[in-house]
Amino acid sequence: MQLTQAHRDALNDVLQWRRDVRHFSTDPIPEDVLTRLRATMDLAPSVGNARPWRVLHVTTPALREKIISNFEKSNAEAAEIYDDDTRASYAGLKLAGLRDAPVHLAVFTENQPAEGRGLGRQTMPEMLCYSSVTAIYTLWLAARAENLGLGWVSILDPVAVAQTLSVPDHWQLTGYLCLGKAAFDTDTPLLHDKKWQENTPTQWQEV
Amino acid sequence: MQLTQAHRDALNDVLQWRRDVRHFSTDPIPEDVLTRLRATMDLAPSVGNARPWRVLHVTTPALREKIISNFEKSNAEAAEIYDDDTRASYAGLKLAGLRDAPVHLAVFTENQPAEGRGLGRQTMPEMLCYSSVTAIYTLWLAARAENLGLGWVSILDPVAVAQTLSVPDHWQLTGYLCLGKAAFDTDTPLLHDKKWQENTPTQWQEV
Repeated sequence: MQLTQAHRDALNDVLQWRRDVRHFSTDPIPEDVLTRLRATMDLAPSVGNARPWRVLHVTTPALREKIISNFEKSNAEAAEIYDDDTRASYAGLKLAGLRDAPVHLAVFTENQPAEGRGLGRQTMPEMLCYSSVTAIYTLWLAARAENLGLGWVSILDPVAVAQTLSVPDHWQLTGYLCLGKAAFDTDTPLLHDKKWQENTPTQWQEV
Repeated sequence: MQLTQAHRDALNDVLQWRRDVRHFSTDPIPEDVLTRLRATMDLAPSVGNARPWRVLHVTTPALREKIISNFEKSNAEAAEIYDDDTRASYAGLKLAGLRDAPVHLAVFTENQPAEGRGLGRQTMPEMLCYSSVTAIYTLWLAARAENLGLGWVSILDPVAVAQTLSVPDHWQLTGYLCLGKAAFDTDTPLLHDKKWQENTPTQWQEV
C-alpha cells in the first residue's frame, strides 16, 4: 500500500500531540473504545511473532489502592537521592495520575512464551520485553488518536506490582499505565515546561 | 488538538502495513528523508525526558561486513537449539536484510545519562532501554509513512556489535536496524505467512 502525504501529516499530529499524561478527568472510557484499543495492540511488532504482552485491566478498588500505595512509597524513596533544592523541585512535579484515571492497565511480559519458538531472542532475550514496549506504544498512539491520554508510571516496585496482581512467576511488569481523558492538551513535555529536563535533539552520527 | 476519524484511519494504515522487513531493494535513501526521520525520533517518549538513544549510521563497508558476520554466526548458533525438522524450517526463513538494505542504523542506549536527573528510573532502570525502543518504533512508523521498510535484527551478539562500533562502555545495544525500500508490501507478518508462528490476539483480562 502506497502511503501519502496525508498519512505522514496525520501520523505527525498523533506523535506531536502525544504526551505522558498525569492530569486526567475521571470520565469513564466507553467499552467499545477499549475494545478498539485492545485490537490495535495486535498490530504491534513482536520478536518471533510471539506477542508476549499480557494486559490486566485493574478495576478492583482494593488493588488500585495497593498500586497507589506502591507509587507513593517508591516516589518518596526516589526523592531521597536529591539535594534539598532538587528535592523541592521534584516534590513539585506531578508524576502520576493514578487516582483520577478511570482505567489502570498493567502490562506484563510473558518471559517463557511457547509462541515464536525462541526465534530472535537467543542473544537478546530482552526482545520479549521490547515487544511489549512496542505494544504499549501502539496503544498509546491509538489512544491519542481517540483523544485519550495515557501515562506510563515507572515509579513503582515492579515485583510488588506482580505480587499485588498475583501473576504467574514468569510474567515481568513492563509498564503500568493510566488511561483516560487528559485534563489539557499540549505538544510540549511537562518536564520541559517545568524546567526539570529540557528537550534535547536525537544524537545521530555516521561511522 | 482534537484528532479526527481521518487521523485514526491514517494511523491504522501505517500500523497495519508496517512490517519487519527482511527483503530490501538496494536503492539509496535520499539524505533529506533521513533528516526527517531523525527529527521524528525527537517526538518519542522518554523516561525523565532523558532521550537516551544514540544512533550510529553505519556506512563504512568493513563495519557493515563485521555486523553481517556477527549475524551469520549468531544465526547458525541459534539454529542449533531446534530438532532436525524445525531446524530445516528455521533455515528456510530469511531473518535479516543486512546485505541489501542501503542503511544500517545501530541504536544504543546511554545507560548513565545526565539528562532526566534519574527521574522515573530508580525502581525500573530498564526504562532507559524502553525509551530507546519507543524511539526506534517512532522511526519505524515514520519510515513506513515515507514508504520505506525497516527490519529489526536481534540475532546478533550485542556486546560484539558494541565492540565493532567502538562505543562507550555505558552504551548498550538496543536495536540494530536495516532501512530501505521494501521489495514488496504486505499486511501480514512473514512468520505467520511462513507458518512459523501464526498471529495470536492480545491477551487482556480484568482483575
